[in-house]
Amino acid sequence: MEFQFLGTGAGIPSKGRNVSAMALRFMTDLQGTVWLFDCGEATQHQVLHTNLKLWQISKIFITHMHGDHIYGLPGVLGSRSFQGAESPLKVYGPKGIKEFITVTLETSRTYLKYPLEIIEIDDGFIEQENGYRIEVRQLEHVIPSYGFRIKEPDQPGRLKVEKLKEQGIPSGPIYGKLKAGQSVTLDDGRIINGADYTTELQPGRIVTICGDTRPSVKTVELARDADLFIHEATFAEGMDEKAIEYFHSTTNQAAQIAKDANVKRLILNHISSRYHDRSDELLESAVRVFPNTALAHDFSIFQLTKRNKE
Amino acid sequence: MEFQFLGTGAGIPSKGRNVSAMALRFMTDLQGTVWLFDCGEATQHQVLHTNLKLWQISKIFITHMHGDHIYGLPGVLGSRSFQGAESPLKVYGPKGIKEFITVTLETSRTYLKYPLEIIEIDDGFIEQENGYRIEVRQLEHVIPSYGFRIKEPDQPGRLKVEKLKEQGIPSGPIYGKLKAGQSVTLDDGRIINGADYTTELQPGRIVTICGDTRPSVKTVELARDADLFIHEATFAEGMDEKAIEYFHSTTNQAAQIAKDANVKRLILNHISSRYHDRSDELLESAVRVFPNTALAHDFSIFQLTKRNKE
Repeated sequence: MEFQFLGTGAGIPSKGRNVSAMALRFMTDLQGTVWLFDCGEATQHQVLHTNLKLWQISKIFITHMHGDHIYGLPGVLGSRSFQGAESPLKVYGPKGIKEFITVTLETSRTYLKYPLEIIEIDDGFIEQENGYRIEVRQLEHVIPSYGFRIKEPDQPGRLKVEKLKEQGIPSGPIYGKLKAGQSVTLDDGRIINGADYTTELQPGRIVTICGDTRPSVKTVELARDADLFIHEATFAEGMDEKAIEYFHSTTNQAAQIAKDANVKRLILNHISSRYHDRSDELLESAVRVFPNTALAHDFSIFQLTKRNKE
Repeated sequence: MEFQFLGTGAGIPSKGRNVSAMALRFMTDLQGTVWLFDCGEATQHQVLHTNLKLWQISKIFITHMHGDHIYGLPGVLGSRSFQGAESPLKVYGPKGIKEFITVTLETSRTYLKYPLEIIEIDDGFIEQENGYRIEVRQLEHVIPSYGFRIKEPDQPGRLKVEKLKEQGIPSGPIYGKLKAGQSVTLDDGRIINGADYTTELQPGRIVTICGDTRPSVKTVELARDADLFIHEATFAEGMDEKAIEYFHSTTNQAAQIAKDANVKRLILNHISSRYHDRSDELLESAVRVFPNTALAHDFSIFQLTKRNKE
C-alpha cells in the first residue's frame, strides 16, 4: 500500500496546494486498484500529473460534504467514463452525497458507462472488501465529518518448513492445510497441529484517515495503533482556541492524538494557505510532541512499512 | 474590452488545455468588471494564474450544460464568497442551471455572502446592462446550446468644435446639447442642429461567443458583422461528416461561418486533445477560408480593435 496526496490545502485552492484528495494505492492486493479519499475540485487535473489512472479507482470515500472535499467528484466520475472505464465504482459519503452526485450528473447529461453505487455512511458504518475492513466514525466538525480506519486482512504466519522436514513430515498438499492452521492426520497416524508449525499470525496494517475535525477522543480510538495516521492541521501551534471555535485542529493537537493513539506515523494534512511559506514551522511544532510526523505536500507519496516476516 | 481564454480544450482537461472558460474584461465601462463565459472545472485555478480576481466577475454566461462547461461553477461561486466578495452576481444558463447550482451549494453547505441571481435562458432571450445588449440564440448541439451576441452601447459622434468656432458659436452648456444631437436656439435667434455639428454615431462593437454547435445559419445571424467571433473547432478540416454527426464543427466550417457573417476576426476555440501538437495545422486550414483567424490557447488575450474616432 502507498499513499499519494493529490491536494493538501484547506478551503480554497492556491498555487501551491490544491483542495483535498488522497489516493491509497494497493500494490499487490485488489488488483492494484486505487481508493480515493475526498475529491476536491481539479482532482482529475492533479491525477494527470501522477501515474495514477482514473479507471484504477474502485472506491471513493468522502469525509464530509464541504465543497473543497467534493467539487471534483462530477469531473472524476464523468472523465472516468469518457476515458472508457467499465469497472464498477463505489462512492461512500455523508448524507447528501447521493443528491449531489445524482443532480450534477443528470443536469449535465452525463451518462456513465460503468456501474456506480453511492452509499451514504453514518457513525459506525462498516464495509468489508476482500478481507479489508473499513470502519467509519463521526468526528467533530461544523457539519458531519468522518474518519476511516482501514485494516488489511491478517495474514497467516509463515510455515516452519525446516521443523516439518526435521520431523520427517513429507511436503505436499498438507503443507497448505498446516499453514492455514488446520490439524492433519498423517499416514503413520500422527496428528499434526498447524499452529505448532507456523509463526504467529501477521496482523494487517492499519491506515486511519480523518476528515476536518476538532481534536476528539473518537479520533484516538479510530487511530489506535495505526501504521499510518492522516490528520488535519488547519492551524498552527498556539491557536488551540481558534481551532476549537472553528472545529479544526492545530499541528500540536494532531500530534497529541497521534501520541495518545500510539500510531507509528502521523501525516499532517489540510494546510492553510496562510502558512504557505512556513510549513517547516508547522512540522517542527508537531515533531516536538510526536517525533515520527511528516507534513503532506501535493503529490507526496508515503509508503507503508512492510509487515514483519517473523 | 479584452478577452482572455481560461480553458480552451474539449470534453476533458489535458495538461495543455483546461476545459471551457473565457473572461470578457471591460477596461473602462462597467467599473472594469468581468463577465465569464462557461465555467469548466478548475476555472478558479486558472484564474490564479491571471490578474483577474473572482470579485470582479459580475455575470457568468453558460452556453450549455455539459460538464466541461459547468463543473467549475460551484468552486467559483463559493471561493468568490470565501474571498469576501459582496457585490451581486448573475448567472445565465440553460434550463437545469438553477437546479445544478442550488443543489451543489446546498448539499455542500455553501452560504454565499453576496446576492446570487440565476436566470434560465432560452432562444431569443435578451438582457440589457448599462447600455450593453446581450442577445441569446439557440444553436445546434446534442443538448440545448446557446450563443451570445454582446453589443456595446453606441456612442455619440465627436463634436465638430472647429466648425462651431468658425461660425462664432460660443462654447458652454450648449456644446453638450449639440453633441447629444439636440437643436439649440442661440441668443441671436439662430437655430443650430446638433446633427450638423457632430460626426456620425459610433456604433458599439460586437462580440459573439458560441457554445458547442454544428455549423448553423443561426450562428451566421448571431455573428453578423461582429468585431470578435468565438467559435468552436472540435474537428479538423475534412471531418465534416463526423462533425455533423457529433453536433460539432470543423475548423473550416467555423471559418466559413465567419466569412458568411462578415465578422472582423475569428477565434477558434474548444480544441480537442487529439490535436495537442497540431494546432498550427488547424489554424492554417481555417486561415485559407477566412484569413483573420486566430486559435485560442489557455491564457491567450485578444483585445478588441478600438472604435474609429472619425
